[in-house]
Order: sequence, then C-alpha cells, then structure tokens
Amino acid sequence: MAIARGYAATDATKPLTPFTFERREPNEDDVVIDIKFAGICHSDIHTVRNEWKNAVYPIVPGHEIAGIVTAVGSAVTKFKVGDRVGVGCFVDSCVGCAARDVDNEQYMPGLVQTYNDVDTLNGNAATQGGYSDHIVVKEGYVLSIPDNLPLDAAAPLLCAGITLYSPLHHWQAGPGKKVAIVGMGGLGHMGVKIGSAMGADITVLSQGLSKKEDGLKLGAKEYYATSDAETFTKLAGTFDLIICTAGVAIDWNAYLGLLKVNGSMVIVGAPEHAIPVHAFSLIPGRKSLSGSMIGSIKETQDMLDFCGKHDIVSEIEMIKIQDVNEAYERVLKSDVRYRFVIDMASLDA
Amino acid sequence: MAIARGYAATDATKPLTPFTFERREPNEDDVVIDIKFAGICHSDIHTVRNEWKNAVYPIVPGHEIAGIVTAVGSAVTKFKVGDRVGVGCFVDSCVGCAARDVDNEQYMPGLVQTYNDVDTLNGNAATQGGYSDHIVVKEGYVLSIPDNLPLDAAAPLLCAGITLYSPLHHWQAGPGKKVAIVGMGGLGHMGVKIGSAMGADITVLSQGLSKKEDGLKLGAKEYYATSDAETFTKLAGTFDLIICTAGVAIDWNAYLGLLKVNGSMVIVGAPEHAIPVHAFSLIPGRKSLSGSMIGSIKETQDMLDFCGKHDIVSEIEMIKIQDVNEAYERVLKSDVRYRFVIDMASLDA
Repeated sequence: MAIARGYAATDATKPLTPFTFERREPNEDDVVIDIKFAGICHSDIHTVRNEWKNAVYPIVPGHEIAGIVTAVGSAVTKFKVGDRVGVGCFVDSCVGCAARDVDNEQYMPGLVQTYNDVDTLNGNAATQGGYSDHIVVKEGYVLSIPDNLPLDAAAPLLCAGITLYSPLHHWQAGPGKKVAIVGMGGLGHMGVKIGSAMGADITVLSQGLSKKEDGLKLGAKEYYATSDAETFTKLAGTFDLIICTAGVAIDWNAYLGLLKVNGSMVIVGAPEHAIPVHAFSLIPGRKSLSGSMIGSIKETQDMLDFCGKHDIVSEIEMIKIQDVNEAYERVLKSDVRYRFVIDMASLDA
Repeated sequence: MAIARGYAATDATKPLTPFTFERREPNEDDVVIDIKFAGICHSDIHTVRNEWKNAVYPIVPGHEIAGIVTAVGSAVTKFKVGDRVGVGCFVDSCVGCAARDVDNEQYMPGLVQTYNDVDTLNGNAATQGGYSDHIVVKEGYVLSIPDNLPLDAAAPLLCAGITLYSPLHHWQAGPGKKVAIVGMGGLGHMGVKIGSAMGADITVLSQGLSKKEDGLKLGAKEYYATSDAETFTKLAGTFDLIICTAGVAIDWNAYLGLLKVNGSMVIVGAPEHAIPVHAFSLIPGRKSLSGSMIGSIKETQDMLDFCGKHDIVSEIEMIKIQDVNEAYERVLKSDVRYRFVIDMASLDA
C-alpha cells in the first residue's frame, strides 16, 4: 500500500479538506501515475454534495486527470515511466462480461467509476479520484496524451472533451453539417472547438451574448442568445444536430423546433427533473431526442489523438487545491472561462 | 366538375351525414378513381371532432382509400383504366419546391392532405377524402395495389400500414433485431405483421392480454401486459427498437428502460399532452426517443410491394357507410379487430 494525499469531501455540506488515504499496491497490469493536474467537473460537485443520492464519504473527486507515469507493472506493454498520460471517468469495466462491448463500454453495467465507486482490486475500498498526488490504474484504462498538448489544459479533455467528441462523432458532425451547441461552458466550449475541427458549421446557442466573442474565436460561425425569442423563429428547421450541455431545465420542444427533418438533439447535461416533451415535437420531421455519456476508452484515445492533430485543449483557469471550495462556488455561478484545473503541485504548498 | 357523393362532418359535435360536393375536372396528369373501400383511421375522428383545432367544415374524411381507375388524363403514364389503386394521407406535396426531397416528402411543408386541406388545383376548394364514391388525384400520388391483395383489407395499408412500415424500415428492423410494438390496435397489428415479415423478433406490449392469441397468430414471438409492473423489470434492456402506437399518455421513461444500449423508441401515436422525459432515461445507454409520420409516396409503394410479396393486409371489420358514426364510437373504445373498412357500395343502399 502507498499513502496518497489529496482533498476529500467528508459529508454533503462541508467543504473539501486535506485527506490522506491508501492506494492499492500496483498489480502486474497497473500503471502508477504522478498526478500533475486535475480538472473540476460539475459532476464532482453533484457527487460530493450528494445531489445524485449515491455519495459514500469520504470522497476524493476528480476524473479529469493528467500526469506522468512513475511505475508500471510487469505485464504493462503500452506505457513506460515518464509517459504523459490521462485518466477519465472510469478505471475498470466489464472485462469479464460475456456481453462486453468495447465500443460501448461506457454504457455497460460493470463500469467502475474513478471515484465514489468500489475498487474490487483493493479489498472493495472506495475508488478515489484525481484531487490527489498519485493514482494506480489498470493499463487498459490509461490514456496517452499527445506530446504537443500541454498537460494542464489537456486534463479537461478526459471528461469535457470526450463528452462532446463522442456525440459529435457518433452523429457524424462534419463538413456540410449544421450543428448547434447549447451552452457555452466547460462542455460547450469543447464542442465548439472539436465540432469546428471536424469541419461542421457550428452555432452556439447561449442564454446571453457575453461569451460571443470567445465563441466565434474558438470556431463558431454564429452565436445566438436563447433569451431572445426571435432566435427560435429565425433558426427554425436549421440544424442537423444539436448538442445540449445545459444542466438546467430548458424547453426541449423549442430546441427540437430548430432541427431539420431527420435531425437529432443530444442531451449531455442532465437537468435534475424530467422535461415535458410533445409527440408533435418529434413526429413531423422524424426528429430524435437522444442522450450521450462520455465515451469508451478506445474513443477517448481517438479523441485525444484528434485533439493532438488539431492542437485542441480546454480553455482553463489554473487554481491551487486550497482554492477548490471557492472554485466550486464559481462553477455554480458559471463564473469560469472555461474550466478550472487544479495544479496538484500546490498540495505541497 | 363532377358531382361526388359521400358522408361529411358539418361540425365538431354532429354525426357524419350524407353530403354531395364537386370534384375537380381531371387535369392531364390526374387519375380518376372509383372508390371501393375506405378505412377508418383514428385521425379521421380527431379531425372531424376538431380535436386538432384545424377543422374546416364540411369535411369528408378518409385517407385509406382503395379503388379502381375509371379515367386518366392524357399525360398519365403509370396507370390505366381498370387498375387497382390506393390513395393515402396526402395528394400533393412540394413539387415546385427547391428543397424538394422525395424520400422525405411527408415531412415537407408543401404537403396537401387528402382531406381538410386546400386544393389549389380546384380553386382553393377543400380537399375531400375517401368516404365518397370517387376521387381525382394527381398520378404522382396514386399507389398501385398488388394483384394478390384484396382491395378491402389493403385499404388500411395506405395509412396504418405505412405508419408502421416506415419506422420499421428506417430503423432497420430485420433478422437479429428485437422489436417491441406498443399497442395492439389498428396500427399495432400492422407492425406485428410487417415487422415479423421483415424477419425481426417481435414482442407486443399491450395493456392487457385479451388480444394475445391474435398477436402470436399474426407473427409476434412474445406478448406482455403493460398493466403488470413485472413486465418492465423482466424486459429491461431487451429491445433494439420500440414502436409506440399508443395515442394516450404513457410513461415513456418506463419504456425507454426496455431499450438496449443505442436503442430507439419511435412514437407514431400522438398523445394529446406532453410527457415528462428524464435525461437519465436517455443518457446512460445513448438511447433515442424519436417520432415518425406515415411515409413518402416512394416508400408507400415499396410498402405495398412488400405486403404483396408477403401477403400482408389488415385484419378488418367491414361496415356500411350508414354505420360510420357507430363505428367511430367503437374505435374510441378499441372495440374493433383491427380496422373498420367502409364498403363504399353501401352509398347506393
């Protein structure tokens, strides 16, 4: 066992505080990673505040992890000490399952989440995430970060990046396709970058126009305010694909009206409550309302390679771990452009 | 102008009564059809009772029309006198439109419905439907009914048949696919027949089991009652495709839970009110909730040819036109196995 240091939530209402815990002794197929940076995802906040009613404390959050390999097990072939690597939202899956489907493993029941889950390889201790100094992960769940991408700004690719890449790829965003990204936050701004690099014609639909300049700079062709009712008449029947990153309740029917015939709207941000959908928002136009969740390991590596090729990383604001609780409050106010990343060197401060 | 006889609704609350009106003089691309049979579709009832708030009286309903060609215009090449033909839900579309899309014409704004619409070829008179002795339709909107299909039981293929064929075909029902048909009525029973002929493994999900024997006889492999909560645990994650014909509000989330990863549920029956959908019913499994509406003329002919090849027609109960109002009441009580068809010869009774 190795002692790890990090920050943990100890219950739903208290701030994160310094926390010491044990990582498992590396198995022959494990990779040991010195964590350099960890992105802050809205899911971290939902989880530690038990808003998804599944929290088991203490929880060290963080599933946007970038670091350097410091040791590898004897059977590891893909990584060596010194490699630049990442870890995303899950660290094990349905390896032994008869129905194993590598291309859809993120949807399989055997998924083990990076934190707030059970680590059967560590005596059923809790899995603990990236707000810490190091992590031990099976080789098959470690990603290679392209050399040209800075580790700090690459960290958010491991969740925000793949969350947008996967639906853009699955629904074939590319040249000739009109794609709307709803919401210009940590997820949305990655959609603008990745979608435009895929060659799609990107429009941002944001509540207001305060981030319009950024949106256009990052690759969007157009930018509209959804607070302006005229947006919905002007853009009716415009899009092949809409990716909705809004985590709050919006009127999906209004957005479905912006789709072309055969268009799809894909939900990647989960509002807390159900949203009423009219059959007539879907039937006349053979439209679809779909969901999408992160991506497989294979697709996540594809995404990182794609981002390497196109020099895509997240727009970040770096913080020290000591400022994580303040950062959470700012995430809730959408007061970040566009992703907080924790410099884990600050653990030693 | 030729005088036509039929039955019409004259307002939302009165029964249908005998009605005489004018059909247009045939143009060079028109086909004149002696109507032999007309199916009764639930849409007929919604329309004449103004439940969709678009009724313009008087209305002669009927868009499941089967008959014999009695005259053709000079430019007509596909049909001749004596041919067995059908007319479905629309009689003109976006012919002059730059965005014309033959494969998706049923979703185009230029669609002219078979009844309760405006006939620009007849001085903007109302289009009038199939509960009548004859109809004049542009060649491009007339379908050929295969010789081996009886005209009476083929009539419902023109709406009920294509409404199920189109999504089954579009979402690739076929060998190895598990498909559920929700509702065992006029639409649902066509889904069982067509889907099983496509080679898919069909399950019926009906409120109760009273039609189970019929469902299995028509091609379903399994039949479950949705009134039994156990159905939803037993069948969780089972289906590639669910076609929902229920015209009343049901909990779509419960049915989305029956889909496999990447599965689609397609709504073809429109409940009056919006139905709340949880993002988490869609996200973990990349599931889709979609809509589908009839089919293009090309696809409708494909469907008729497919039905000819597989000897598929509707299960019908024949009535006289004089009994149409009573039949409407029985449709509302689901008291028909499985489609009423009006014998138009009864107009002369």
